[in-house]
Amino acid sequence: MTDAIDYARYDRIRPIRWTGEALELLDQRKLPFVVEYLSCASSDAVADAIHALAVRGAPAIGISAAWGAVLAARAIEVTDAADAAARLEPALQRLNAARPTAVNLAWALARMRAALLRAQAGEGMDWRAALEAEALAIETEDLAANRNMGMLGASLIAPGSGVLTHCNTGSLATAGFGTALGVIRAGVAQGHIERVYAGETRPWQQGARLTAWELMQDGIPATLIADSAAAHLMKTGVVQWVVVGADRICANGDTANKIGTYQLAISARHHGAKFMVVAPSSTVDMETASGELIEIEERDPAELFAIAGTRTVAEGVAAWNPVFDVTPHGLIDAIVTEKGIVEHPDAASMRAMFPD
Amino acid sequence: MTDAIDYARYDRIRPIRWTGEALELLDQRKLPFVVEYLSCASSDAVADAIHALAVRGAPAIGISAAWGAVLAARAIEVTDAADAAARLEPALQRLNAARPTAVNLAWALARMRAALLRAQAGEGMDWRAALEAEALAIETEDLAANRNMGMLGASLIAPGSGVLTHCNTGSLATAGFGTALGVIRAGVAQGHIERVYAGETRPWQQGARLTAWELMQDGIPATLIADSAAAHLMKTGVVQWVVVGADRICANGDTANKIGTYQLAISARHHGAKFMVVAPSSTVDMETASGELIEIEERDPAELFAIAGTRTVAEGVAAWNPVFDVTPHGLIDAIVTEKGIVEHPDAASMRAMFPD
Repeated sequence: MTDAIDYARYDRIRPIRWTGEALELLDQRKLPFVVEYLSCASSDAVADAIHALAVRGAPAIGISAAWGAVLAARAIEVTDAADAAARLEPALQRLNAARPTAVNLAWALARMRAALLRAQAGEGMDWRAALEAEALAIETEDLAANRNMGMLGASLIAPGSGVLTHCNTGSLATAGFGTALGVIRAGVAQGHIERVYAGETRPWQQGARLTAWELMQDGIPATLIADSAAAHLMKTGVVQWVVVGADRICANGDTANKIGTYQLAISARHHGAKFMVVAPSSTVDMETASGELIEIEERDPAELFAIAGTRTVAEGVAAWNPVFDVTPHGLIDAIVTEKGIVEHPDAASMRAMFPD
Repeated sequence: MTDAIDYARYDRIRPIRWTGEALELLDQRKLPFVVEYLSCASSDAVADAIHALAVRGAPAIGISAAWGAVLAARAIEVTDAADAAARLEPALQRLNAARPTAVNLAWALARMRAALLRAQAGEGMDWRAALEAEALAIETEDLAANRNMGMLGASLIAPGSGVLTHCNTGSLATAGFGTALGVIRAGVAQGHIERVYAGETRPWQQGARLTAWELMQDGIPATLIADSAAAHLMKTGVVQWVVVGADRICANGDTANKIGTYQLAISARHHGAKFMVVAPSSTVDMETASGELIEIEERDPAELFAIAGTRTVAEGVAAWNPVFDVTPHGLIDAIVTEKGIVEHPDAASMRAMFPD
């Protein structure tokens, strides 16, 4: 296959490393200036790291929690799988509470509990080994899904294209390679993508702090822009695709993602640029019919008052700080999951890809 | 008139104060945390203050330069108007060079030179008094124009409306009251505007630092948003008008303004919100046929790498930092100058309002 990707070159960053004794997390609070792994030797240390945002991104949080469960299993002195479940539960609860809104966290811990049940049922392996195998499976499957999505998404992008992305959806947010950033990695590796632009993503600056740094590690030249420069950039004709991640994808294809995504979708449509959403199928929520039913989390207005600890806004000013917005499916040209591509997503095409 | 405005309440800020001896400039580099006037006792001090951004906003710069010329006149020891012109010229050149791209700067100094010529021609007044009268006229006319535009623009806004603005177009950028912010002041004073939103305006944060502070001084409640939250805000239905200033308005109504304006215009049209441009007629450039002919200034990418002196982006990252963008006339519902309102601006309606 001529388009095979040199992963040794284009997938260098690992935010999560299991040493066999401890979980090492690339401390994202210190990026991009300090590249330092935080070593977690207990499940509580993992919970603290998730809570304190040393690790972020829904898939990365889920994988970290799974390894946290492995650490919890080592700390209890039972040998019997049947006893282990009850003894582990407090630690799993603490992990689950570290970021209550991250869907992948609960999903990963549910997988760990199920693995324990299978071990209890006497399906071969030692229960601690079964948990470790499950954590590794969660991590490995995430990476494989990302690489698959990368190939699928990149197949939509014509040679000579420019892409614009938003927030951080890369290796740092996953087991590796990334979702939207995985598509961009794949497209660059194949030589189809010639220009990469990243919005800085106010107020947390994930694009400026994380995406710009991450792409540089793989030698992918990217250009940072102010979020408000996106439409002007598109007008110059250099953007053929906007490629973003998703926090939740509804049954009709409406997609919740980081604030600013919706505005990019409107501008893309206005300029004839295409709009792609890339996310694992665990993000698809077929129980929620449409985006109007998603409640948008609003965070502390104070996040707009200071940047990197320096206050820029007068005392007494009010602010509105929604974390996500919803892009209606009519503005989305393709939704890419590891299961395949849904072009022109709507309730029918989504149901065809995700039956029940 | 029932809609008369209580200017004592709604026009409190003066960025420029002539004491009779010196020019005092509200130091905008220190806002919003320190409210401090910088006293300029010489034309060179005024030129330095303009260059160092202690005063900003095209009209405010022009007015400051005019007072700088008055200070220059006091410093030279000639009594004869005919000699004064040549002796003043070096100081005027220095003022003009302080911010070479600000159109109003050259315009104000041209008025001062013309006033001197009239004094030379023996039209009554002492030449120094003539210069002082002209500087006062420039300042007074700017304030009057802003109040006039405020009434005109506010007349378009239906009771119960919400408005969104961008950058700072207020008292701080003018002799007082402001252009787009003058329309917002007038609309609030008349009780027509119920909600005011201000985009923070990356990368310089003029909305966050200046507009939010300025509106608070007049007791106008405003809500700050990240620039990328604008479309999501519009989707909630609370924005009826986007009201912005202009750096240049072309013969067909295409308008150059602070980066991000174009994106707001696209989102406004998408949501059925109206879009208003407010600027003095000196901003209208009937010599430039359309926006494609405007060269967009690009500033140092480093402006995106740090905020308030704190670096947030890794070394080696590239960035694109255009200062302005162009909003095509088709996305503009009304252009308001002190001469009147051009609704649905195009080459014909602009020519009708600005015949040569």
